[in-house]
Amino acid sequence: MSLQYNEYYNEKTGLTIGLKRQLFCEQSDYQKVEVFETDTWGNLMTIDGMVMLSEKDEFVYHEMMAHVAMFTHPNPETVLIIGGGDGGTVREVMRHPSVKQVDMVEIDETVVRASKLHMPEVGDFDNPKLNVIYENGLTFVEQPPKKYDVIIIDGSDPVGPAVDLFKKAFYQHCYNSLTDNGVLVSQTESPFVEHYHDSMRSVFGALKELYAYSACFLTFIPLYPTGMWSMAFASKGPKPHGEEVNARISKGMETFGDKLKYYNQEIHHGAFALPNFVKQIFAD
Amino acid sequence: MSLQYNEYYNEKTGLTIGLKRQLFCEQSDYQKVEVFETDTWGNLMTIDGMVMLSEKDEFVYHEMMAHVAMFTHPNPETVLIIGGGDGGTVREVMRHPSVKQVDMVEIDETVVRASKLHMPEVGDFDNPKLNVIYENGLTFVEQPPKKYDVIIIDGSDPVGPAVDLFKKAFYQHCYNSLTDNGVLVSQTESPFVEHYHDSMRSVFGALKELYAYSACFLTFIPLYPTGMWSMAFASKGPKPHGEEVNARISKGMETFGDKLKYYNQEIHHGAFALPNFVKQIFAD
Repeated sequence: MSLQYNEYYNEKTGLTIGLKRQLFCEQSDYQKVEVFETDTWGNLMTIDGMVMLSEKDEFVYHEMMAHVAMFTHPNPETVLIIGGGDGGTVREVMRHPSVKQVDMVEIDETVVRASKLHMPEVGDFDNPKLNVIYENGLTFVEQPPKKYDVIIIDGSDPVGPAVDLFKKAFYQHCYNSLTDNGVLVSQTESPFVEHYHDSMRSVFGALKELYAYSACFLTFIPLYPTGMWSMAFASKGPKPHGEEVNARISKGMETFGDKLKYYNQEIHHGAFALPNFVKQIFAD
Repeated sequence: MSLQYNEYYNEKTGLTIGLKRQLFCEQSDYQKVEVFETDTWGNLMTIDGMVMLSEKDEFVYHEMMAHVAMFTHPNPETVLIIGGGDGGTVREVMRHPSVKQVDMVEIDETVVRASKLHMPEVGDFDNPKLNVIYENGLTFVEQPPKKYDVIIIDGSDPVGPAVDLFKKAFYQHCYNSLTDNGVLVSQTESPFVEHYHDSMRSVFGALKELYAYSACFLTFIPLYPTGMWSMAFASKGPKPHGEEVNARISKGMETFGDKLKYYNQEIHHGAFALPNFVKQIFAD
């Protein structure tokens, strides 16, 4: 028997991944969480049939979600991660010595449990600076217990409950939850997949309206549809470029650069270069 | 019945593309050339079962293969394209007003015929500056009729006869076929796929040894394995960065920038930012 995982993102176009066996399958109150052992990607987590991460390629997504924001903020001490239950974004954020507390607001403890069990290298759940809160991120940011220097929205695709993560009201609440120099990063789907364009326009339109600075950046993720993934950057002031940012990146690379497999200073800046067709999505 | 195209690049991991019907299928002296009508990617050409291009995503590959080299050279008048039988690289090269002659050396007239028949918008075969030569590019560069300002190697994957396109001897002959300020670009597979690493090291090792300047750049190609594709840049002197390059790009963008869907000045430079794991391939 040949087990295969298939994810179609464009009628019949999609990814096929060879599986060895299923390691975890649980229908939580929110979603179906599964983990598979694959042929060459290590263990793979899917939620409602959509790839979340594999052990082999997760480094790209998590390094880019964390470090672009963390190096742009002059001194990130408090970080809020919305979603991110696999723990990979926590792991990358914790590399920054300035961090004093990370609040991870994950709606579904099943994701955390599955990751701890079957992707033990991904998370950094034992870190004493980590505070895991099992709540809906959408409501959490309406009345946050404190303000954060960095907010990272590591949520699912815009399907079901995650749809509201792509709407203006949510980004307004995030704005209110940020400190004065606050920086935000959010995953915003693949620009190559046309049915994501409305979600992208919704997020980037809201960020442009609400935040002092906003921009889109891109990264290669082999197990996400089309391999091209977009992320939103927004801040109350700090821009992701310039000498001060570069000085912080250089210092960070001396400290933990050898642990990173994707991110570096050139990638940080190069990621903001957008192909014409991506610019066009926002121009329409 | 549901027709599907499958390309596996990593045991059972790969791409699946929904097909409507087969439009062309011919076993030439060299390879099996097929064209399919797909669900959402326009017409798709495969060679020996490997994706060459789709009408919908070919712009990325062809713009990046052509313009990085063409804008780096101070005044490209003569261009040699090895392979490239679909005509897309010719089309992009011809946008540059400095061009006087393009020699396209394609081993297999079947590819050209299939493209003309089923991808009529891709090529620019009626351009009077184009000279199509049906020969083996490997031997053509051993005794070229003239020297070229730019050579673009738009060949297949390193399987069968194309293996030698990834070896030092070929890049030595290309060097000899270039004018004094000559610039070369070649496609060099996906860094995410480990069995391509030897081919990549072979090409980049040869370029570093033979050419005054060489570098790797990357581009997003949704229908190529993993979505991340590498290209090799090499030259007898000109570097792809700096004020003069930027001045030429700016002028070019004024002339034909509205026809491009991927390439622009930020992309030109950002493409040379390499993730740590890609740098590591060359460091090993």
